[in-house]
Amino acid sequence: MSLGIFDSGVGGLTVYRELAKQFPDTDLIYLGDTARVPYGNKSPDTIIRYATECASMLVKRHNVDALVVACNTISSYAIENLRSTFGLPVLGVIEAGAEMAMAVTKNNKIGVLGTIATVRSGAYIKALEEVSDGKAIVSQRACPLFVPLVEEGVITGEIPSLVIKMYLDELIADVDTLLLGCTHYPVLAPLLASIYPEVNIADSASMMVEHILAGGLATIESGKREIYVTDITPAFESLKSMLVGDIPMQEIDI
Amino acid sequence: MSLGIFDSGVGGLTVYRELAKQFPDTDLIYLGDTARVPYGNKSPDTIIRYATECASMLVKRHNVDALVVACNTISSYAIENLRSTFGLPVLGVIEAGAEMAMAVTKNNKIGVLGTIATVRSGAYIKALEEVSDGKAIVSQRACPLFVPLVEEGVITGEIPSLVIKMYLDELIADVDTLLLGCTHYPVLAPLLASIYPEVNIADSASMMVEHILAGGLATIESGKREIYVTDITPAFESLKSMLVGDIPMQEIDI
Repeated sequence: MSLGIFDSGVGGLTVYRELAKQFPDTDLIYLGDTARVPYGNKSPDTIIRYATECASMLVKRHNVDALVVACNTISSYAIENLRSTFGLPVLGVIEAGAEMAMAVTKNNKIGVLGTIATVRSGAYIKALEEVSDGKAIVSQRACPLFVPLVEEGVITGEIPSLVIKMYLDELIADVDTLLLGCTHYPVLAPLLASIYPEVNIADSASMMVEHILAGGLATIESGKREIYVTDITPAFESLKSMLVGDIPMQEIDI
Repeated sequence: MSLGIFDSGVGGLTVYRELAKQFPDTDLIYLGDTARVPYGNKSPDTIIRYATECASMLVKRHNVDALVVACNTISSYAIENLRSTFGLPVLGVIEAGAEMAMAVTKNNKIGVLGTIATVRSGAYIKALEEVSDGKAIVSQRACPLFVPLVEEGVITGEIPSLVIKMYLDELIADVDTLLLGCTHYPVLAPLLASIYPEVNIADSASMMVEHILAGGLATIESGKREIYVTDITPAFESLKSMLVGDIPMQEIDI
């Protein structure tokens, strides 16, 4: 068995890293559609078409047994479509993140952090309501500087600490759990935890691990590691080496 | 007479602001192709096609007499094409910025600041060499966090000051002039000037003003102000109101 993990760009590597750690013996094939990133400003039809092309590459060329959508935009718009098109298990970051947040909160007060597009979409609010049967009390905060900080590798020290406090000092009084609603944000999790040691930090990857185990999707031994992108960009290269080291990367057309 | 100013997004508003200040009685029509921003990761053919569509909208619907390309990517790839297609004066930010830098430097040592794509393209190095007959001594520094800081409105205080020092403290010893090679950067010019009071800061807009005067492109009285975008985005709205106030803005298809 093997898992295909894909994202419009580089952020999904945080999910890849977590799965690679948890499932050393499972084939993990990553595809980043870096030539067409960002998806966030595309129409829903285009997002579904691009996502289907990515999934198709993983299913047809690499014969994966399940798809992990490591991208908020695709998870918002295309996941049902992918499920019906490919007839495979498809795990999305939004559902997994919402489940994780509800698993760790003590008082149901969740602070969702995301890009402007994700916050505007309300996708996490909807998912949290479903997962919690309406019990979740959700605040949101868009943190548009987090992605460029991560892509620049500015993830420790004074600059990211000040940016985190600028965005979160108000929110933090109202919640006991921060839900990282963007696949770039787990890179900042250690700094978030050191600034706000009392808060729970929930990301999607850990809950995906549980689903993969429960679904029996990570069972055989081979442990192939392959990363494909539609365009090798500086941000992808640097984040890739920071997150997953020297796993081979290849540029392809899809 | 009237001028059509266009950009893939919001940054060109810094040029618009300068022209509006200098030419209160000239029609200035702005187009931001915000639905398709960024152009930086598109192929040259696509950039030329999009730029031609933008220019066409300004020439055909608004009958402008000259085009101001307030975008580095378009200036790099499409300017000759636009000149031959439309047969109008076309001013580009790269040539204007290079001329301005050479006009203010005392020792020909220019530090070019830009996005990763602009720095990689070497477009300013080429333009500076041409403008200076090879006399310019050019250093470059990509400053990828400047655009998100400007789009977030984080343009004063400790965060942008630390980011500026992170990028420029080394470079600044080698140059007497900083060339702002990105249309977002003039928003940070006051902060740059306060951190490095001894350095000259060159942007494109002031030299464009001289070309417009020299070309007699700003002569009649009517002073229309119109701003069009292909998608109204939060970044455009907030930067627009910061830079040019309540000039009307309209979303259109091109």
